[in-house]
Amino acid sequence: MTDSADIARLIISCPDQPGIVAAVSQTIADLGGNIITLDQYSTDPEGGQFFQRTVFHLPGLAAARPQVERAIQEQLADRFRMEWSLHDTSRPKRVAIFASKTDHCLLDLLWRHRRGELPMDIAMVVSNHPDLAEDVRTFGIPFFHVPATPGTKEEAEAKHLELLEGNVDLVVLARYMQILSPRFLEKVGAPVINIHHSFLPAFIGAGPYQKAKDRGVKLIGATAHYVTEDLDEGPIIEQDVIRVSHADDVAQLTRYGADVERAVLSRAVKWHCEDRVLRHGSTTIVF
Amino acid sequence: MTDSADIARLIISCPDQPGIVAAVSQTIADLGGNIITLDQYSTDPEGGQFFQRTVFHLPGLAAARPQVERAIQEQLADRFRMEWSLHDTSRPKRVAIFASKTDHCLLDLLWRHRRGELPMDIAMVVSNHPDLAEDVRTFGIPFFHVPATPGTKEEAEAKHLELLEGNVDLVVLARYMQILSPRFLEKVGAPVINIHHSFLPAFIGAGPYQKAKDRGVKLIGATAHYVTEDLDEGPIIEQDVIRVSHADDVAQLTRYGADVERAVLSRAVKWHCEDRVLRHGSTTIVF
Amino acid sequence: MTDSADIARLIISCPDQPGIVAAVSQTIADLGGNIITLDQYSTDPEGGQFFQRTVFHLPGLAAARPQVERAIQEQLADRFRMEWSLHDTSRPKRVAIFASKTDHCLLDLLWRHRRGELPMDIAMVVSNHPDLAEDVRTFGIPFFHVPATPGTKEEAEAKHLELLEGNVDLVVLARYMQILSPRFLEKVGAPVINIHHSFLPAFIGAGPYQKAKDRGVKLIGATAHYVTEDLDEGPIIEQDVIRVSHADDVAQLTRYGADVERAVLSRAVKWHCEDRVLRHGSTTIVF
Amino acid sequence: MTDSADIARLIISCPDQPGIVAAVSQTIADLGGNIITLDQYSTDPEGGQFFQRTVFHLPGLAAARPQVERAIQEQLADRFRMEWSLHDTSRPKRVAIFASKTDHCLLDLLWRHRRGELPMDIAMVVSNHPDLAEDVRTFGIPFFHVPATPGTKEEAEAKHLELLEGNVDLVVLARYMQILSPRFLEKVGAPVINIHHSFLPAFIGAGPYQKAKDRGVKLIGATAHYVTEDLDEGPIIEQDVIRVSHADDVAQLTRYGADVERAVLSRAVKWHCEDRVLRHGSTTIVF
Repeated sequence: MTDSADIARLIISCPDQPGIVAAVSQTIADLGGNIITLDQYSTDPEGGQFFQRTVFHLPGLAAARPQVERAIQEQLADRFRMEWSLHDTSRPKRVAIFASKTDHCLLDLLWRHRRGELPMDIAMVVSNHPDLAEDVRTFGIPFFHVPATPGTKEEAEAKHLELLEGNVDLVVLARYMQILSPRFLEKVGAPVINIHHSFLPAFIGAGPYQKAKDRGVKLIGATAHYVTEDLDEGPIIEQDVIRVSHADDVAQLTRYGADVERAVLSRAVKWHCEDRVLRHGSTTIVF
Repeated sequence: MTDSADIARLIISCPDQPGIVAAVSQTIADLGGNIITLDQYSTDPEGGQFFQRTVFHLPGLAAARPQVERAIQEQLADRFRMEWSLHDTSRPKRVAIFASKTDHCLLDLLWRHRRGELPMDIAMVVSNHPDLAEDVRTFGIPFFHVPATPGTKEEAEAKHLELLEGNVDLVVLARYMQILSPRFLEKVGAPVINIHHSFLPAFIGAGPYQKAKDRGVKLIGATAHYVTEDLDEGPIIEQDVIRVSHADDVAQLTRYGADVERAVLSRAVKWHCEDRVLRHGSTTIVF
Repeated sequence: MTDSADIARLIISCPDQPGIVAAVSQTIADLGGNIITLDQYSTDPEGGQFFQRTVFHLPGLAAARPQVERAIQEQLADRFRMEWSLHDTSRPKRVAIFASKTDHCLLDLLWRHRRGELPMDIAMVVSNHPDLAEDVRTFGIPFFHVPATPGTKEEAEAKHLELLEGNVDLVVLARYMQILSPRFLEKVGAPVINIHHSFLPAFIGAGPYQKAKDRGVKLIGATAHYVTEDLDEGPIIEQDVIRVSHADDVAQLTRYGADVERAVLSRAVKWHCEDRVLRHGSTTIVF
Repeated sequence: MTDSADIARLIISCPDQPGIVAAVSQTIADLGGNIITLDQYSTDPEGGQFFQRTVFHLPGLAAARPQVERAIQEQLADRFRMEWSLHDTSRPKRVAIFASKTDHCLLDLLWRHRRGELPMDIAMVVSNHPDLAEDVRTFGIPFFHVPATPGTKEEAEAKHLELLEGNVDLVVLARYMQILSPRFLEKVGAPVINIHHSFLPAFIGAGPYQKAKDRGVKLIGATAHYVTEDLDEGPIIEQDVIRVSHADDVAQLTRYGADVERAVLSRAVKWHCEDRVLRHGSTTIVF
C-alpha cells in the first residue's frame, strides 16, 4: 500500500501500567511520525506484562534513526522498564533456509519470495543433500551443500556457523532432517524457526504420520515454532490442520500433511519477518 | 476478565491525518483512563477515512461521563471532524429478537445469553407465529405474538413499533420470515441485523438451498448483515460456510445450513453488542 | 428421503478376499432387496480386514427379517468368516445421556433430537447433579438424579446399571464429569461415547484448556471417542478444532471449546445411530 | 497402495432400478476381478438416475480388456440402458495446461506432478505469453507460445487444435486469460477444466476480487468447473474459501485468492484424472 520507505516498526514489552499507549503515541507524534497500525496485548491489566507493536510513518526515517532511538530510550524505555526494538521496513531480514531432500516447504518459500509475498532477502539455502541444488539456483539463490553424517556433525555445524555469521537475521528449517545441537543454537545469534509435521503437542518426535494413523485421528496438522534446546517444545508461532479419514494410508497422510506444512511455515516466516511475533516465555503473541 | 464496571468503549470515525491515535490516547490518559485495547483502521493513510475502537478503564466512569464526553467533543471531535460514540459496558444493549417458526437461531441466542456469552439484555421476542412461545418463556423472556398476514402488515408493524419504541437498542431477525417495510426501518430507530441463509451475494432472495442444490455448489453458507432498504444488500457483518456434497438433498443442506446460520448470527450479534462493528458505506469494519 | 420403513443396514467385517461385494449384493438381490448405498473399506486388499456398510430397501422387512438373517448367515457369514449385524431403521437406537452441570452438549443433543436430526430415541438423562432437571423435562425426557460421591461410587453405578439394563442401546457421556469403572463398562452391555475437551492425543486428562493456554497452541479441539478401560485412549469417532489466539484467556478457550465439543459430539452420536461407525482395534472406520 | 498395473475403473450411469450393484459386482467377479472400492449415488431410488464408480483389480487386465468390455456391454449396458467407460489406471490421462502470465496454478500442478501426486502425463503447456517458458521447461515439459490478440483469435485456436488433436485427454486452464470460442470447445474433443477466481455463482465475470472488496464479503473463494459455452456456468467440480477482513486491500485479496485457486484447481484435476468426477446436467457427482 504505502511505500515501505520511511516506515518503522516499534516492538515493546514491559510491565503493564496506565499510560503506555499514550506515551508511545505521543513520543511518535513528537518525532513527526504518523501511526499506521498499533496492536497491544496485556497478560493482565493488573500486574501483567504488556506488549505492543506500532507501525508508523516518519519522513526521513533513515537519517532520523539515532534521534528516534534516543527518544524511545529516554522517554519510554527508562520510564516503563521496557524492552524494545526498532525495525526499518526498508531493510528486510536476511534469511538462511535449511532443507534436506523434500522440496515442498522450500519451494513454497522461494516461490512466495519471488512473487513478492515475503518481506525478506534469502541469503542462502543450506542442505545436507545435493538434491535440491538446481531447483534453488533456478531462483537465483546461493545453495551450499554441507553433508551431515553422525561422525561429522560438529564439523558440519562449524561450517554452518561460518556461512551464517554476520549474514543472516533468521534461520528457517524447511523440513531439515537434522537436530541442531545446543551449542549451535547458542552460537547462531539469530532466531531459528522449524516446521514440525504434527499438530503439537500431539505426536512429538519422529514418524508423526505413522503415529497419527495408528491412533486413528480424524485431523492431521503441522506446527511452526521457534527452536529451543527442548526438542519440539519451543514457542508455537502457527498451526493448522486438515481433515483425513480411515481410508487414507500413511503415504496419503504425508501428502496431505505436506500441504499444511508449507502453508503453516510460510505464514510463520512472513509474520516473523513483519515483526508480528513476540516471544513470551514458552508461548508467542502474534499481532 | 476485568469487571465490566468502569469500562468504556469509544468509537470514532474521521478523515485520516497524523496524530489521531496520540490525541485520543492522551485525552484518555488526561482523564485518568487506562487503555485496555485499541484497534484502528484507515481506508488510506492519505485522504482516507480513519476508524478506531478504544476500550479503556476509568474509575468512577458513570459519574465522570459528562466530563468525559465534553473532553472528547472539545479536544478530539472538533479538531478532527470526528463522529463518535461512547459506550459504558455496564449498560448492555437492549435487544429484541424477531423469529417465525424455526428455532435454531433463536435458541442459540437465548442459550448463549443465559450462559453469559452475549453482553446484552433480551427485552423481548416477537414472532408472527405462536409456536415458540413456550421455548422462549422457559428462558424467562417476554414473548409477543404479532400475527402478520398480507392484509395486516401495516397494522403488525405499527404494533412492532409500539413494542420497540424506547425499549431496544438493536433488533435481531433470527430467521424472521417477513420483509420489513422501508417505513418500519425508518421509524424503528435502532440497527437491525438479519441472518440470510446463503453465502451472499450468491443466491439472494428466497429458497437459497434449493438454488444451491440446482447449481451444484460444493459449499453452502450463511451471512449476517445489517438490514437496509435494499433487500439482501445491507453491509455484511459475518459469513461462514460448510462443505456439502452431491449426495446431500435440499433437506440435508437446510440442516447443515442451520448450523452455520446460528453460529454466524450469534457471532454477529456478539460483535455488535461489543461495539466491534463499524459501518462504512455498504461494508463493515469488524475490530 | 425414502421413508425409513423397510430399510435395513447390514454391517459386516471379515478377512478381505475377492468376491465379497458380489456375494453380498447378490444375496440382497435374491431376497428382493434394492441397495441404496454401499460403502466398503479394506485395510489391505491382500491379507487385510474388510468392512462394509450396505443400506438396502426390502419390502416387508419386519416380517422377512428371520429369513434375511438366515440368508446372511448361511450364504455370507459362514463362507467369509464374517462378523455382521443387521439394523432395521424403523427401530431407532435407544440412548441414555449422562451429564453433570454443563449444559451445552446435552442441550445440543436434545434440540437436534426434537428437530428430527438424530435418528434415535432418548430413553433418559442421568446426572450426578440436579441442576439440569428442568431443562431436560421441558423436552418430555425422563431425568434421573444419581448423586456420585467418592464414597458412593459403587452404589451409584449399581443404580445406573439398574436404570440402563435392557433399556438402552447406547450411552452418551455429554460432559459427564465422573470416570466410569471397568466393572461398569463390562456390565453396561452397550457402547459408550464420550466427548473429550481436547484434540486427543494432546492434553489428555483434566484441565485441557489450561494446558492448551500454557502451551500456547493456536487451535483448540475436541474429540468424541468410544470409552474403553484406558482413559482417553478409546477409538476416536470424530474431532474438530477452532482457531484461537494469544488474547484468549482460559475462560474464552472454554467457551470456544464448548462450541466444538457440542458439534463433534452431536456428529459422533448421529453417525453411530446411523451405523456408520465401525470399530477396528484402537481406531474406527466412519462410512 | 497396490501397484496400478491391472487396476481398472468402471464408470457407469443409468436409470436407477433394483439389482444394478449386484449385476455389476457379479460381472466383475465372473471376469476374475476383485473390487477394491465402489461408490454409487442415485438422484432418487424411484425413477432417478444412478451413478457408480467401481475400481477393481483384474490380473492380466491389458490382455483381457476386449473380453471385459464385451461382458460389460452385453451383461450390463444392454440390460440397464447404461452409459459407461472403462479406464486402465496404467494409462494415465494426457493433459495440456493453458496458462497466461500468472504462475501460481501452473507451478502447483507441475510441482505436484513431479512429486507423483497427480496421476497424469503433462503433454504440454500452452500460453499466450512467453513469460513462463523457462519455468515450464525446467520441468522437462514442452512449452508452446501461441500469441492471442483480438485479431488473431481464430488463428490461435486453429493452432491450439493442431497441437491438441489426438494428443490429450484433458485441457486445464490454469488462469488462462482468454475466452475459448464455442467452436473450439466443440472441436477440442476433450473436457476442459477452468479455475475461476471467485466462489461461483458470486462475482461472475472479470475482476472478482475488486467486486468482493466492494461488497465487503468476509470470505473469498475459488471454483474449479468444467467449461461449457455458458461462461462461468459449467458444472462445478470443487470450491473452497479463505477468511479475509476489512483490512485486506484488493492486492491482498488477490494473494490470498491465489492460494485458494491453486489448491482448488489441483484437487479438481487430481479427481478428474482419477475418474472421480461424473457430470450430471449442470452439476457433478464427485466420488
